[in-house]
Amino acid sequence: MARPIITLTTDFGSRDGYGGIMKGVILGICPEARLVDLSHEVPPQDVLSGALVLQQAVPFFPTGSIHVAVIDPGVGTERNALALSTPEAFFVGPDNGLFDLVWSEALERWGAERLFAVRLTNPRFFLPEVNPTFHGRDVFAPVAAHLARGAALPEMGLALPAIASLGLAAPLRQDDGWWIGEILAADRFGNCLTSFTLRALGQIGAFEGLRVWVGDMDLGPIRRTYSEVARGQPVALIGSSRRLELAVREGHFAQAFQVGRGARVRVGRPG
Amino acid sequence: MARPIITLTTDFGSRDGYGGIMKGVILGICPEARLVDLSHEVPPQDVLSGALVLQQAVPFFPTGSIHVAVIDPGVGTERNALALSTPEAFFVGPDNGLFDLVWSEALERWGAERLFAVRLTNPRFFLPEVNPTFHGRDVFAPVAAHLARGAALPEMGLALPAIASLGLAAPLRQDDGWWIGEILAADRFGNCLTSFTLRALGQIGAFEGLRVWVGDMDLGPIRRTYSEVARGQPVALIGSSRRLELAVREGHFAQAFQVGRGARVRVGRPG
Amino acid sequence: MARPIITLTTDFGSRDGYGGIMKGVILGICPEARLVDLSHEVPPQDVLSGALVLQQAVPFFPTGSIHVAVIDPGVGTERNALALSTPEAFFVGPDNGLFDLVWSEALERWGAERLFAVRLTNPRFFLPEVNPTFHGRDVFAPVAAHLARGAALPEMGLALPAIASLGLAAPLRQDDGWWIGEILAADRFGNCLTSFTLRALGQIGAFEGLRVWVGDMDLGPIRRTYSEVARGQPVALIGSSRRLELAVREGHFAQAFQVGRGARVRVGRPG
Repeated sequence: MARPIITLTTDFGSRDGYGGIMKGVILGICPEARLVDLSHEVPPQDVLSGALVLQQAVPFFPTGSIHVAVIDPGVGTERNALALSTPEAFFVGPDNGLFDLVWSEALERWGAERLFAVRLTNPRFFLPEVNPTFHGRDVFAPVAAHLARGAALPEMGLALPAIASLGLAAPLRQDDGWWIGEILAADRFGNCLTSFTLRALGQIGAFEGLRVWVGDMDLGPIRRTYSEVARGQPVALIGSSRRLELAVREGHFAQAFQVGRGARVRVGRPG
Repeated sequence: MARPIITLTTDFGSRDGYGGIMKGVILGICPEARLVDLSHEVPPQDVLSGALVLQQAVPFFPTGSIHVAVIDPGVGTERNALALSTPEAFFVGPDNGLFDLVWSEALERWGAERLFAVRLTNPRFFLPEVNPTFHGRDVFAPVAAHLARGAALPEMGLALPAIASLGLAAPLRQDDGWWIGEILAADRFGNCLTSFTLRALGQIGAFEGLRVWVGDMDLGPIRRTYSEVARGQPVALIGSSRRLELAVREGHFAQAFQVGRGARVRVGRPG
Repeated sequence: MARPIITLTTDFGSRDGYGGIMKGVILGICPEARLVDLSHEVPPQDVLSGALVLQQAVPFFPTGSIHVAVIDPGVGTERNALALSTPEAFFVGPDNGLFDLVWSEALERWGAERLFAVRLTNPRFFLPEVNPTFHGRDVFAPVAAHLARGAALPEMGLALPAIASLGLAAPLRQDDGWWIGEILAADRFGNCLTSFTLRALGQIGAFEGLRVWVGDMDLGPIRRTYSEVARGQPVALIGSSRRLELAVREGHFAQAFQVGRGARVRVGRPG
């Protein structure tokens, strides 16, 4: 059997060793697992940022990879613990919207009948002692390791008809024909991911002639690459996330224009 | 033979590649090692924080794992270099208190006759050239890799009767029956680890009726989970570290109350 | 066949998952690769810092290791994409000076006839779709994985006679017999790497009697270890980088003396 891949996405930071502890648990159960950190630096308790990290990364991992994600402000409360499977991947973590983006894409692609979600209830797949403040270590890491060893979802808990949503609004068409969306997050370079996915832009029609505004600033047409504008100039383009991204060539868009999550983005055709 | 696990805990940071260099050295000697980062972001030269990272992580790794830790303000001076073994794990690093917490626990659990400590003196297990500023690369990484390949501690140096202590005080009972301890460290979430271990609390007796104070603030009883208090409220609980921890539900205790290492914590029964 | 080692050096940061995505791509092509992060925290778009990370790390990895580095302010422009081989290692990344230091050392050591450089042009070794903003994922990661599987450089593109230089000046001898160099970078501890390599110092002659100045401050002779000065005192020594480094014992040189890249360093013999 190929050695299974388990990725980790958390807001635990890199200082306290919590991500490493999860790896110790996994290797104790499944010594042949290959472990890949996606991020331990998701901003604390920022579920949307974690969901975007997963959405960007998952398509680039081999089929059958297991993605554990723990951004979990509700740990120890009544929120469900999840394991999910699609024809391409497994997901393990809290049911708080963290898997909304990857799950919605899988639903569109594969249809509900090929997806499976369970609420984790069977303690046989947890550590013997579950501390209510660290399910990453005591629930999600061991569940992922058991999946890597071939355990089946139905053994792990009860089927769920649906999982938690982030409640993100798709871009909306205004009466004047322009579409209104928003900035979802800024990355380390200050590039801003927007709610305009390739699919949403497809609804608007051909890219030619489309212009992008943030607040009262015209960013011009949608470009193919940073190099179409001068250094230090803003640019709107389809980024590696397959979303409309706002950037400054060799600069930091979010700082330069003092914008962040929730800032309004307009896309449309002038006049 | 199972593939040996080697963990790394340092204050080298993630920017300069020093942790990666240690991995290059290890893989050159023991290509089948599995490498796990516990932390490279221990605050610079903060030996106590490193000791707490190890204490929390070690119990969750498989038996036989090798833990290399390098927080080493005394590199290049006369401080000893160590390799330690217990029935559960190996440790490699400087003799400056970094292993005090894990070693004391192992002594209690296994007794001195099942533990072994050596001062590393045999250069056969070092890199050919040892730079006095980077023993992590030139001494500790190669020693760990040789342990992973099965080298025995007695070949590596001279037995030591004891290792360096951190000199931490256990909580002290006052005349009024309350116990006085302190905050040892705050983690990324602002949760504060205290010197009240489960064992120390056991001396005080049953948890029922115990209350926790920090300075002149009453944190109430010891709770089981964050969710027993409202969002934004402080809470004292037994954290995943198996110590009394002070937190704010979905908040940052250390910032909210402007406390850190050394702040006095009192535990006892009112009236 | 031994399992190939692939190291990653980027300025992607640890928050957004971009380094993890590269690992997903690599493992999809070469499942047996062993992945080692050198750094994802190179300061954004700071090619010189990335070059120094590589120069320090590469000698400590086993022969045949593949080093992917992506600090790439020119992504999407006309800059070349590179794969390089020496008798010791492979390198993959943008042609912007990032490989200048390791390549110059290899040229000195092995001679031009044992080195090979190609401009990556064969899309068979890229991902099927190449986004112009993320060659790390779509070009460099898959090329490295194909090298790990045994692909040969000549299949990948056109031979290049030379690669981009950083244009660093070697230390210069003044009329008064003193040599003038500069600080190249400060690490996490505030230790400053200078342009005085061991080789450059060798031109000046025996270390005895040499003194080091930064600005108008006399740092004294070149020491062997931090412990030759008192705590809090500055010290000049040959660091683990095999360069003249400036440090403060248990302190932070760059902050203490408010110096950084470009600050002038003088080495010579008084009177």
